[in-house]
Amino acid sequence: MTLPWPITLDEVHAARARIAPYMAPSPLYNHPLLDAAVGHGVHVLVKHENFNPTNSFKVRNGLSFMTALPESQRARGVVAATRGNHGLGIAYAGRAFGVRTTICVPVGNNPDKNAGMRALGATLIEEGRDYDESVQVALQIMERDGATLAHSTNDRTVLAGAATLSLEMFEQAEAQHTPLDAVVAVVGGGSQAVGAMTVARALSPHTRVYAVQAAGAAAAHDSWHAGQRLTVDHADTFADGLATRSTYDLTYPALRDGLAGFVTVTDTEIAEALRLLLRTTHSLVEGAGAGGLAGLLNLAPQLAGQSVGIIVSGGNIDDATLRRIVLHEL
Amino acid sequence: MTLPWPITLDEVHAARARIAPYMAPSPLYNHPLLDAAVGHGVHVLVKHENFNPTNSFKVRNGLSFMTALPESQRARGVVAATRGNHGLGIAYAGRAFGVRTTICVPVGNNPDKNAGMRALGATLIEEGRDYDESVQVALQIMERDGATLAHSTNDRTVLAGAATLSLEMFEQAEAQHTPLDAVVAVVGGGSQAVGAMTVARALSPHTRVYAVQAAGAAAAHDSWHAGQRLTVDHADTFADGLATRSTYDLTYPALRDGLAGFVTVTDTEIAEALRLLLRTTHSLVEGAGAGGLAGLLNLAPQLAGQSVGIIVSGGNIDDATLRRIVLHEL
Repeated sequence: MTLPWPITLDEVHAARARIAPYMAPSPLYNHPLLDAAVGHGVHVLVKHENFNPTNSFKVRNGLSFMTALPESQRARGVVAATRGNHGLGIAYAGRAFGVRTTICVPVGNNPDKNAGMRALGATLIEEGRDYDESVQVALQIMERDGATLAHSTNDRTVLAGAATLSLEMFEQAEAQHTPLDAVVAVVGGGSQAVGAMTVARALSPHTRVYAVQAAGAAAAHDSWHAGQRLTVDHADTFADGLATRSTYDLTYPALRDGLAGFVTVTDTEIAEALRLLLRTTHSLVEGAGAGGLAGLLNLAPQLAGQSVGIIVSGGNIDDATLRRIVLHEL
Repeated sequence: MTLPWPITLDEVHAARARIAPYMAPSPLYNHPLLDAAVGHGVHVLVKHENFNPTNSFKVRNGLSFMTALPESQRARGVVAATRGNHGLGIAYAGRAFGVRTTICVPVGNNPDKNAGMRALGATLIEEGRDYDESVQVALQIMERDGATLAHSTNDRTVLAGAATLSLEMFEQAEAQHTPLDAVVAVVGGGSQAVGAMTVARALSPHTRVYAVQAAGAAAAHDSWHAGQRLTVDHADTFADGLATRSTYDLTYPALRDGLAGFVTVTDTEIAEALRLLLRTTHSLVEGAGAGGLAGLLNLAPQLAGQSVGIIVSGGNIDDATLRRIVLHEL
């Protein structure tokens, strides 16, 4: 029993056309020192979404959402729940189009991300213990104010925005004469992985998409292996972008049907991958941004000799976490 | 008594056309949190050369040099002296065009940069106590092997390559409706600052270009203020890309004639600027890449209310130095 795929390639092309005036494509680089570290003859192609405005792929989602929003809804404002990057993307797009944005984050959220959203003009509401509780706060504001909810996952324009990175990545890999045999994508809500599968199905059906979650926040992973949708009680990982406790209606069926595999990685493995990215790509990476490499390091033996894309999804690591990474306290 | 300007805008356009197939323009971003930290109403535009292949602007120089080199010279190989980024650029371009490269670095050079050059296929020669001594080693190899010297400063195609970043920066600032009133550029050999002045003279004569050197490696700064070319005995700064002891024939006269001002910054000020860039731009920056911001922080009162471009020239900071930065040991 297969549901319709959540978005079409046409929607991805349309999103790319809408956001193109506001951001350039991000680079896809091969780093020889990273290949040497991964081993097994894997040719690693790194999609540097940490180089985007707001330092994450979520700016695509925010711009895709806002450019598709009718003027009448723009006038009533937009509300979103986030651990930070989705909110930064929405706030960035809100500033670009003069749309008032209200962003709900859990208490104790990444201080750099909070400061970044405020600096972009967003009204920040700190409430709830984690992302999924912040979503409930956002829903209340939506009803109270008549604002439009920009859900970070359950929204077709958001998913299409995320998929634009994969459209670029597949095209860039072809242009570099190293077409992708596989993509390893992290799952918080699932927009990255569903985006990659959407593009692969249409343009490169032989490419296999693998998903990765943090071992401490593995609802989608556990659901995928159990064959039924599960919710977990805790989301324990320093990779705040991956700290979700649920599966999501718009992405889960596609994850269930389309993935070639789904693995978990420990926080220690994510931290090791993050250090390796600092040393070999010389770019700043946040926890969620290192998850793809952490997964690839586990999957490398079975991907021997292949051309594999990973997505460094963001670089918004805060001072305190960077210090723990550099001191090997994580 | 004014010498002819070292390069023309036509040479910069030609260099851009030659390198365009091999790298995309780097982004020019405004970071609201950085503006708030700089204060004085300065609108800061950051040219993110740390996002380039090899993580520095020097890849432009390497590609510009190699694409202009006749086939007969390519066949005999290229030799260069470097603290790392120029060598990475030459090695990257050498790999792209199948040209053998020999890179001379001083003993004790940045290990990440050395590893990066080797991974790109360069032969590394570690000899001499600093950059200027490595240049002497490179000259010997040139004579012995018949290789062509790619000097990191005294070469018109190298200067034109560096200037392509300024050509992009001025165009991007215009497109963002914040044309540059000033640029603050660091000086190691001077290619960044001369590039900025070359573009400003032709396209935006009102834009003032300021230069910055590390206080511990201030030969060009001291020469500029003394009105005569001086050489210093030591180059003491953790910002390895700025560790030069001399002025250079092709750039010094232009620096002397064209700069609006020339300041020095201490290593502590560079380290503070680097931490500020980590926190507000969430990108990885090396010492030399933070020099422009360190200079801007000194110059901000006199640039109040202006639109100012700074160049984050590179991100090749090694593990040990990053640790010292994060722990405030620098």
